[in-house]
Amino acid sequence: MSYQYHVDGKLVPASEATVNVRDRGFMYGDGAFETLRIYGGEPFEWAAHAERLQHSCETLGFAEALPPTADLRARVDETLAANELRDAYLKLSVTRGVQPGKLTPAAAVDPTVVVYVSELPRGGVDGERVWDGPASLGTVDRVRVPDGAIPAAAKSHNYLNGILARLELRGSDHDEAIMCTPGGYLAEGATSNLFFVTEGRLRTPTTELPLLPGVTRHVVLSLAEEADIPVETGRYEPDALANASELFLTNSTWEIRPVSRVDDRTFPVGPVTRHLQRRFDERVESFY
Amino acid sequence: MSYQYHVDGKLVPASEATVNVRDRGFMYGDGAFETLRIYGGEPFEWAAHAERLQHSCETLGFAEALPPTADLRARVDETLAANELRDAYLKLSVTRGVQPGKLTPAAAVDPTVVVYVSELPRGGVDGERVWDGPASLGTVDRVRVPDGAIPAAAKSHNYLNGILARLELRGSDHDEAIMCTPGGYLAEGATSNLFFVTEGRLRTPTTELPLLPGVTRHVVLSLAEEADIPVETGRYEPDALANASELFLTNSTWEIRPVSRVDDRTFPVGPVTRHLQRRFDERVESFY
Repeated sequence: MSYQYHVDGKLVPASEATVNVRDRGFMYGDGAFETLRIYGGEPFEWAAHAERLQHSCETLGFAEALPPTADLRARVDETLAANELRDAYLKLSVTRGVQPGKLTPAAAVDPTVVVYVSELPRGGVDGERVWDGPASLGTVDRVRVPDGAIPAAAKSHNYLNGILARLELRGSDHDEAIMCTPGGYLAEGATSNLFFVTEGRLRTPTTELPLLPGVTRHVVLSLAEEADIPVETGRYEPDALANASELFLTNSTWEIRPVSRVDDRTFPVGPVTRHLQRRFDERVESFY
Repeated sequence: MSYQYHVDGKLVPASEATVNVRDRGFMYGDGAFETLRIYGGEPFEWAAHAERLQHSCETLGFAEALPPTADLRARVDETLAANELRDAYLKLSVTRGVQPGKLTPAAAVDPTVVVYVSELPRGGVDGERVWDGPASLGTVDRVRVPDGAIPAAAKSHNYLNGILARLELRGSDHDEAIMCTPGGYLAEGATSNLFFVTEGRLRTPTTELPLLPGVTRHVVLSLAEEADIPVETGRYEPDALANASELFLTNSTWEIRPVSRVDDRTFPVGPVTRHLQRRFDERVESFY
């Protein structure tokens, strides 16, 4: 299928969806983005994604140039309609655009706004999940960029840290890399947040550490609360995973993805993971 | 003047010089680049830039896809010829190109190669320099990304760290931001290496710290050696600058740029700076 993307206010065939090479998104990764799941034609957790995009653009110093949320939403809806998509993966990027040739950003910003889509069916409560089974994690030497260098809560086009982490897994059969902070605490995967269960408690690294405050992470924490599952956010060393009875990852695309392996150790898909998946599916079902 | 850029093997008008929005250079800053000065139609220190580009692509894991140096050089020369430029600023970028929609890089890489140019006259030995006078430095809270997260020796399209550092200077009249390492040692400017003189010795932070091993930095170190100026590379705290008798910055565009201010303290353009500038100019003159 040949998609249409939304670039700078216009729908164009994906092959013609381009930005100028002087766009700061290309030259410097100077932009922010969100990855969303579309269920039944509606973006899941739109308000949370729009809010985080606003926050990312504030960190990058061009929030005042971000189009209003309703305008962004209209571009998303137009893109979905043009591609006749009801179940999809969607990425919304906003960069600082083209400016005179200096690293110091000019105050006047004409942002570049891009919406990319790809069909992504989902199984739902009774269906099969679409990703390739449980995740296999490799803990890597690459550490997460500290907040003092680039705030992790800003989801930007500077993604080399995660790419270098994934490259460490080349030649292995792991498909997600778990990074620690420079101080040695578990942070997150290259594109996912990490959860694990020890002593009957669901644990995930605190956002006081440099990690992306994932939208799905937040949804899972609220689902766990509704389900009276004890939850703790904290600082954990990698050794803590060895004692886990089960683990899973979250992101918008993977939703709640069980982990079957960490380095050489195997794990079952556990009852907490299954219960939270069921509740997540129920929340999604309301979109249909 | 309307320039022609070189994109993926073709010369195109700058306004039509584009990359697909799915290029990993745009999505993730997943690419490497070099900034060069062109003197008398020739790239200055071409071999050093080509070598560093190779190193950057090795760090990013796609060195085998980098076109041979002679091929890259041909693109540079074609771009200069098409624009009839003899004195210019030139940027050469190589990204991992378009790949299937995953963060994990695919092994097969069809790189995107871009050459941008802009006219940049120079004064030379007897002329005026083209930049806006000496630099005014602000030391910033933003710290340099540690090597464990992203190696600083790879000059990549992930430039938010330096952009955030420059943004801290908004509203001041400083024009370069000096960053420290997370451990508190002086590292470098957002786009420049830092040199200063104390006790008759020229000092610059060691590349054991996370900083870009600048091509001009290297030239200056060799010029200082030729001139029997004592040189030390080391770890310095920001307080060391207060005792400096003179300071300067280096990069390919600025060459050797004197510093007139660090925060609230002023500095003269000193004899070591002037002497090295003269030697640098003499080296450049050989291109005409």
